[in-house]
Amino acid sequence: MNLDGHSLIAGGTGDSEASSFRAINPATGARLAPDFFEASPGEMNRAMTAAADAFAHYRTVSARVRALLLDGIAEEIEAIGEPLLERAHAETGLPLARLKGERARTCGQLRLFAEVVREGSWVDARIDRALPDRQPLPRPDLRRMLIPVGPVVVFGSSNFPFAFSVAGGDTASAFAAGCPVVVKAHRSHPGTAELVGRTILRAAAALALPPGVFSLIHGGGATIGVAMVRHPATAAVGFTGSHTAGRALFDAAAARPHPIPVFAEMSSLNPVFLLPGALRERPAAIAEGLAASFTLGVGQFCTKPGLVFTVAGIDTDAFLDALCNRVETLPSATMLSPGIRDAFEEHRGTITAASGVTIIARGKAEAVAARMEGQPSVAMTTAAEFLKTPAMATEAFGPFTLVIRARDLAELAACARAVEGQLTATVHATAEDLRQAAALLAELERRAGRIVINGFPTGVEVCPAMNHGGPYPATTDVRFTSVGTAALLRFARPVCYQGLPDEFLPPQLQNANPDGILRLVDGHHSREPVRPD
Amino acid sequence: MNLDGHSLIAGGTGDSEASSFRAINPATGARLAPDFFEASPGEMNRAMTAAADAFAHYRTVSARVRALLLDGIAEEIEAIGEPLLERAHAETGLPLARLKGERARTCGQLRLFAEVVREGSWVDARIDRALPDRQPLPRPDLRRMLIPVGPVVVFGSSNFPFAFSVAGGDTASAFAAGCPVVVKAHRSHPGTAELVGRTILRAAAALALPPGVFSLIHGGGATIGVAMVRHPATAAVGFTGSHTAGRALFDAAAARPHPIPVFAEMSSLNPVFLLPGALRERPAAIAEGLAASFTLGVGQFCTKPGLVFTVAGIDTDAFLDALCNRVETLPSATMLSPGIRDAFEEHRGTITAASGVTIIARGKAEAVAARMEGQPSVAMTTAAEFLKTPAMATEAFGPFTLVIRARDLAELAACARAVEGQLTATVHATAEDLRQAAALLAELERRAGRIVINGFPTGVEVCPAMNHGGPYPATTDVRFTSVGTAALLRFARPVCYQGLPDEFLPPQLQNANPDGILRLVDGHHSREPVRPD
Repeated sequence: MNLDGHSLIAGGTGDSEASSFRAINPATGARLAPDFFEASPGEMNRAMTAAADAFAHYRTVSARVRALLLDGIAEEIEAIGEPLLERAHAETGLPLARLKGERARTCGQLRLFAEVVREGSWVDARIDRALPDRQPLPRPDLRRMLIPVGPVVVFGSSNFPFAFSVAGGDTASAFAAGCPVVVKAHRSHPGTAELVGRTILRAAAALALPPGVFSLIHGGGATIGVAMVRHPATAAVGFTGSHTAGRALFDAAAARPHPIPVFAEMSSLNPVFLLPGALRERPAAIAEGLAASFTLGVGQFCTKPGLVFTVAGIDTDAFLDALCNRVETLPSATMLSPGIRDAFEEHRGTITAASGVTIIARGKAEAVAARMEGQPSVAMTTAAEFLKTPAMATEAFGPFTLVIRARDLAELAACARAVEGQLTATVHATAEDLRQAAALLAELERRAGRIVINGFPTGVEVCPAMNHGGPYPATTDVRFTSVGTAALLRFARPVCYQGLPDEFLPPQLQNANPDGILRLVDGHHSREPVRPD
Repeated sequence: MNLDGHSLIAGGTGDSEASSFRAINPATGARLAPDFFEASPGEMNRAMTAAADAFAHYRTVSARVRALLLDGIAEEIEAIGEPLLERAHAETGLPLARLKGERARTCGQLRLFAEVVREGSWVDARIDRALPDRQPLPRPDLRRMLIPVGPVVVFGSSNFPFAFSVAGGDTASAFAAGCPVVVKAHRSHPGTAELVGRTILRAAAALALPPGVFSLIHGGGATIGVAMVRHPATAAVGFTGSHTAGRALFDAAAARPHPIPVFAEMSSLNPVFLLPGALRERPAAIAEGLAASFTLGVGQFCTKPGLVFTVAGIDTDAFLDALCNRVETLPSATMLSPGIRDAFEEHRGTITAASGVTIIARGKAEAVAARMEGQPSVAMTTAAEFLKTPAMATEAFGPFTLVIRARDLAELAACARAVEGQLTATVHATAEDLRQAAALLAELERRAGRIVINGFPTGVEVCPAMNHGGPYPATTDVRFTSVGTAALLRFARPVCYQGLPDEFLPPQLQNANPDGILRLVDGHHSREPVRPD
């Protein structure tokens, strides 16, 4: 397993060695060979320019070729085998079993997008045929479909080294839509990034695609990232990470002479509302599920439940007992990086230092700093305290959750109205609870991208109906998802052809409908060919 | 026809009279009664707050009620009859016949959105049923659809006092999506705005909708507009107007603590490419059509063709002769307002003052300043001059177009690559021309929202396949259209329900599919009910 350490630029490698860094094994603190080199501004420019050149070709390749690229990447990733898992394990501290599952999810995701591209109806083709005899004016023939926007810059996340990184959901959906991709590799897993980046290059080369269709940039901090967003060749940006970094990229994109969209998935507290009937029926099961959910992946999921709202009462006490008992059996575990662990401790400290907040349970062993561990813990406060202290609604990215006790359902509803935009909101409820909770559900629907009933928000299914998005500050654009097949709509735009003869139209809009896609023809959905005028 | 002159705020009228203005009849310079009063910041705040309150209700009303609102507005507009046309004529100088046509288009547009809402499939419903036995993990039941984003602020345009104003495309699509609307009336036709605004209030009252579902704000300049964009209750903005104003609103929206989208349709030169075969076949017909298109509505259309690219040669000379001859027969005509006429003269002056630009034809009579007239004119330059003078690619909003002569097809292609984002790009071509112009078409598709073949860009059909949008600076968001049924997608966002029992789901996602809408069920499109688990 040879790692080169330079950026991968348009089929070659960078040569700048002015500044280097190494990955750190969070479980041991060891600095891992080899050195990785930060791309120079010239190298970044070369990657973006090559992406713009490659776009002229890649935007025109058939759906079949795009699908083969996606399938090819999945095959190449699987072909690396154990060495990829081992490098990712060393760089992230994530258990091998989890990484194996995440690899399967990532390859499944690439293949699902290939399927969507092959099926083809996602382009939302619409045909309104000419009405030459219409009064007072004839109608021309109008045909419209979605086409790719241009080169997409992707910022990989720290917490999903496969599924939200180099060949993750953003890259898969951009390739599916017909856009070249330039990835800014996350500094915490550069070796994993290089290995996966090379799979993309191999899959692209096997199809004789122009090498600029993919580049991978190593770099430090925000400077090179902001420069990528500002580059004139960049047409859109996908990002998963902190609010501070996401907002900085959004602001840079909005201030461009030609603004571009930034799809930043940033921060979410994923509030959970436990209604009285549900707590009466199954306090222990809810406690068990919640403990598993907020500590899954050492609490480092964007959908980790960080706020748990309850109504004080005997069933809530039973639930809390069960929750504390469960949490006290849980081990501390290695977090992704020193930076993430420090931020976790800081934000948890801010919350637990607030007036009226008490820690009610901790995991069975102290966190060992040398192993970069985080210790599970639960704190509690009242709704009254929560409502007057906005700092409690801070994301502590790690194995921590805050339970809020309201006096009654009215106070619980006031808490719901106080939360900001979220990726998810969860409700545990009986059918009777739900009948009385219509107003609560309506409030949550306005504040979250996904409403989870009697489940837990961690575990984001990759499928057509998924929505992984939400009102700001969860994301910068509530209208789109970053997980699931609808994610490719972020990187597409409509174009309309008026009066273009059939033979010059893209296949999706030709009379014969050669791919048999679903189209809206004269206002009616159909897969049938259209009769020529 | 009583006009009150105050803003219409949540079912009542404003009472601030601190600052007033009158509409001006551009054809006579007369100041038209009554006085109109600029809304105070407090009144604007009242309108926005009422819209936020109304949203809680309006977002939940059935598709049928939304459709009835849209139909009701159309009926109320028609019911005003002649007085509406006369007031609009006095305020805009547009001929009565044109205004009658625009009214029909506006009412047709409202009814078309009502139809889309009644049919219901626009919500892009997706259902992935539970797979309880899936390994390694079960899949929960996931159902997703589009829901409204919240109150929409609409800035009416000057040039379409009905179709892109108070009850125009932005308002119709926002109501269709389920969003309350607050319109900032255009200062140049406040009486028309009030008359139409009252039709919306009557239609809303007839359905017992909360009065905050619609407000109309009178105001001067950018201050109140920017304040509306910054208001915390505002969820999205629709705008049609100048680049300067559109960009100011976009910047204000992006700088909010919680950014919101601005759909600004701003400026476009709508380049026309005349290929040699087409000019050989029908020089006179193309000249005739072009002259009609660039002077339609005194050149005050966002899709007016402002640049005409040709290849020098004998057929091009024949075309130019025909064009000049035609233009020299055309009268001067009253423009929309003193500000628009001044801007037209200024921008035309900038272009014609550039080195290498010659005016080659003018209309038959000088423009009379007292009647706020604009005179049709055509100028000419070479591709070489055009390519070195970016100021020639300036929008002169009025009856003017610039013909550019290229030496050959290669220079024509260089011109195509030099133009910025456009609403439209037009090509006149024979089938043989098109066969050789694949690269040109690809370039234009990347720069424009609509490609017109052997037609003219003015005349924007309202239908499912229309795309009235384009890359910046034509609009601020290339992913959406402001005309046609897809316009309502601007004001909607997805939400996903995980595990919500059938009886609590919105009808669009219930197993029974009571409205029979098209849905994506387990990856397959269907209007069938879904079997319960």
